[in-house]
Amino acid sequence: MTNAQITLVQIDNYGPWTVTPEPRREVDLQTLQSRLYADLSQLIGNREGYVFFTRFDNMVAVTNGLSMDDHALVQESIGNRYPVTVSLGVATGTSPVQALADATDQLQDAGSAQDKARREILRGRTIDEEFRTDDDIQIAHFDVNDMTGNFTDEVNAFDSFIHIEQGYAELMKYMREAHDSLSFFVGGDNVIAVCPKLDEREYQDAIQHVEETVEVELKVGVGSGRVPQDAGMAAKHALETCRADGSRVEFQ
Amino acid sequence: MTNAQITLVQIDNYGPWTVTPEPRREVDLQTLQSRLYADLSQLIGNREGYVFFTRFDNMVAVTNGLSMDDHALVQESIGNRYPVTVSLGVATGTSPVQALADATDQLQDAGSAQDKARREILRGRTIDEEFRTDDDIQIAHFDVNDMTGNFTDEVNAFDSFIHIEQGYAELMKYMREAHDSLSFFVGGDNVIAVCPKLDEREYQDAIQHVEETVEVELKVGVGSGRVPQDAGMAAKHALETCRADGSRVEFQ
Amino acid sequence: MTNAQITLVQIDNYGPWTVTPEPRREVDLQTLQSRLYADLSQLIGNREGYVFFTRFDNMVAVTNGLSMDDHALVQESIGNRYPVTVSLGVATGTSPVQALADATDQLQDAGSAQDKARREILRGRTIDEEFRTDDDIQIAHFDVNDMTGNFTDEVNAFDSFIHIEQGYAELMKYMREAHDSLSFFVGGDNVIAVCPKLDEREYQDAIQHVEETVEVELKVGVGSGRVPQDAGMAAKHALETCRADGSRVEFQ
Amino acid sequence: MTNAQITLVQIDNYGPWTVTPEPRREVDLQTLQSRLYADLSQLIGNREGYVFFTRFDNMVAVTNGLSMDDHALVQESIGNRYPVTVSLGVATGTSPVQALADATDQLQDAGSAQDKARREILRGRTIDEEFRTDDDIQIAHFDVNDMTGNFTDEVNAFDSFIHIEQGYAELMKYMREAHDSLSFFVGGDNVIAVCPKLDEREYQDAIQHVEETVEVELKVGVGSGRVPQDAGMAAKHALETCRADGSRVEFQ
Repeated sequence: MTNAQITLVQIDNYGPWTVTPEPRREVDLQTLQSRLYADLSQLIGNREGYVFFTRFDNMVAVTNGLSMDDHALVQESIGNRYPVTVSLGVATGTSPVQALADATDQLQDAGSAQDKARREILRGRTIDEEFRTDDDIQIAHFDVNDMTGNFTDEVNAFDSFIHIEQGYAELMKYMREAHDSLSFFVGGDNVIAVCPKLDEREYQDAIQHVEETVEVELKVGVGSGRVPQDAGMAAKHALETCRADGSRVEFQ
Repeated sequence: MTNAQITLVQIDNYGPWTVTPEPRREVDLQTLQSRLYADLSQLIGNREGYVFFTRFDNMVAVTNGLSMDDHALVQESIGNRYPVTVSLGVATGTSPVQALADATDQLQDAGSAQDKARREILRGRTIDEEFRTDDDIQIAHFDVNDMTGNFTDEVNAFDSFIHIEQGYAELMKYMREAHDSLSFFVGGDNVIAVCPKLDEREYQDAIQHVEETVEVELKVGVGSGRVPQDAGMAAKHALETCRADGSRVEFQ
Repeated sequence: MTNAQITLVQIDNYGPWTVTPEPRREVDLQTLQSRLYADLSQLIGNREGYVFFTRFDNMVAVTNGLSMDDHALVQESIGNRYPVTVSLGVATGTSPVQALADATDQLQDAGSAQDKARREILRGRTIDEEFRTDDDIQIAHFDVNDMTGNFTDEVNAFDSFIHIEQGYAELMKYMREAHDSLSFFVGGDNVIAVCPKLDEREYQDAIQHVEETVEVELKVGVGSGRVPQDAGMAAKHALETCRADGSRVEFQ
Repeated sequence: MTNAQITLVQIDNYGPWTVTPEPRREVDLQTLQSRLYADLSQLIGNREGYVFFTRFDNMVAVTNGLSMDDHALVQESIGNRYPVTVSLGVATGTSPVQALADATDQLQDAGSAQDKARREILRGRTIDEEFRTDDDIQIAHFDVNDMTGNFTDEVNAFDSFIHIEQGYAELMKYMREAHDSLSFFVGGDNVIAVCPKLDEREYQDAIQHVEETVEVELKVGVGSGRVPQDAGMAAKHALETCRADGSRVEFQ
């Protein structure tokens, strides 16, 4: 069994801030959002976790190995460097979707995402050290088969992107509904999913579903670990095996 | 008629670089990509253009007002500060999709995105100053109706995100096929589209299509300008009017 | 005659902010300061100006070519992305020191740097377009003779640094008192000075003074231009000539 | 006794890179340098260390608590995100100056700072866990008495800066020669010094020397700790006590 520790990162009262006193320049919002994400990547990544940009105003992190004190420091560091603050909800569970749902509850119970008075909430709980195992995280790294040869170098850049987005939209929905997994587009033609303990047949099923539904051919490398970084790196190596061998699903 | 100037920004040989000599840490790739995008936002935004992160390894910019010299300086500045370089293809036209297709051709003709020898290409042409007008750009800023009340504060963060992604995947495809427009998710529940000269009926049509197909309710503010920044800011103000009045489509 | 346009950038109420409610982590302050400076470098540099980090909480920029509107946009962009705001005082003159004194007055007249109510001041005036000339800026780029061979590769890193700092402290003071110039350490063994119209004899004098007083041997390349970027790049090329020819002062 | 672990961070072959094939724009170099420093601040600071910008091409870090593996990860992360690489020399000792000298030797033995073939050196040794104590680091945080009231709000910004720089140049030299300490300007009117076990009399001596020599009045807070972050934060609190009580030297 896996035991994912999931953290929901929510920028406090962000929507209203972006239009107060009047709409702020998009270029500054884009810069703010992407740098905040880059900083969280470093803050959480330096502690062997992963964070995904998701909606940018709501980001999802896999934080096995980070204590509540670590979370507090991440929150303080952002507050020291940005014009906005973040709230953090933390929860754990065998199903990543359920863990995120519980983490979301922590913040929803504290007030609305657009409540001016709800700031820098930090709630939830992490996995006790004694219950942590080397298989707590399963990460799957998907990419699109021969994306460069068939698309990037052949059709216009937007049609390439539509191809990837259709694949992602279908995969994220199916993996969530059929397999309790959280899938995130991470750039290029790559999607990284945080999964419960799935086997090869279940990944084959997901790949087949996406191919039949939206005609996007995927392959996937799967890795496990005590912390997200190890699981993710194992998944990358497994994906390299797919590339070398022409296979569609590889575990490492 | 509009006359969009579109620039395709492509990181040179990025895919192979990310796995050479072996897969690089995801945290560093995420940091690199999002900061590169933030820097392009500033470099292009300081010249009143817009850039969208798209796939991160392929980004799309609207660059009316930037000369080829400006493009060269942006390219040089990135080369001076990153371990990767970028190629730029520039094209113009009444249809944003066609302009992007032409910009893509410029780069594809120069070699594969994964060709090690193809570096820092800069090709294409900008609009001659004498042909520029105050309506060259039309930008539409969409968001999801009552996203916070119905979703962010109610369901788990991933299901909120699925709702947004389904809406975006459908909108981007429909706007491209039916209306020659390029639509980009920009965070939160926001999508910004670069459009040819569309009228209210056409925006109503797109909103209705998305609502009927994937049950996502959108509204949209539309603005025009000589440069992307002005068109985009007008669109934001129009969207504020939608919020204030409860309307679904507003022009400013 | 030169005609420098100098901008004083002052973080509002920064000292008190760094210790409220209690001292903030030094690592975050360092990150904030150096990124704020990097962003100003880009915001002002993309408009062909120069900015120097100086004290970090007070930075000095050479802004020939930037209008008051440009200044307002720089100020707004920082306010949109940082937890602190900046005030800007702008002044011009044949003497860079006098111009900075006038720019300082603009802010001092508006209140104390540690007055909580004094925020985002923008005062002063820029050079009218009709009075701008191609010699408005003179920039001198100094470095230490054979720093790497004699120091970096030979003595411990702190003693190398002491050597540079003693040279800089003496040069900055002498250039200010004897030659009305503003000199800034910019990293490595480099100092960039913004000068009135000085001739070769005056640079020889400054170099000789530093050598006699603190035994640091300098050389210098000097350039002129309508905007800081052009003057600064000319100075760099002149310094390359010094390196190639073994000369101590070169103009370009 | 203290036992400082000092790391010299040196950008590989940086000088030649800045002028190859011809001088790079100063604005990009300034951005690169200050961001590289900000990233090191985060990478090392997230592991409870301190890093000082020093010359920017040579930075000095206090790294008690970081293993050689941590150093390797910092080095890899920079290499993944910048167009330049860094070499790291690590050494320990009761005298911070001697430790830095030994760390410098590690890199000098590996080749010149401007040797194209010397890249990403990582040499030296860290303190064995069993020998670490709660007093390994002593940090002193100096600032200038009533800087804002007497200078920032009264004289021009450059003369304020000269006052600070003269004080710093004298302090850094005296603390190195008389007290084996490494002192670094960190912005504003602040200097942070890494010291061996000094007592109140020795700090009084240094303050008095600077006041007599260059007429700059300093005060100082001193803290100790197992890691730089704890020692530095204690020093900040001690400096707050100076501010509250009007004293010149405080230990915490």
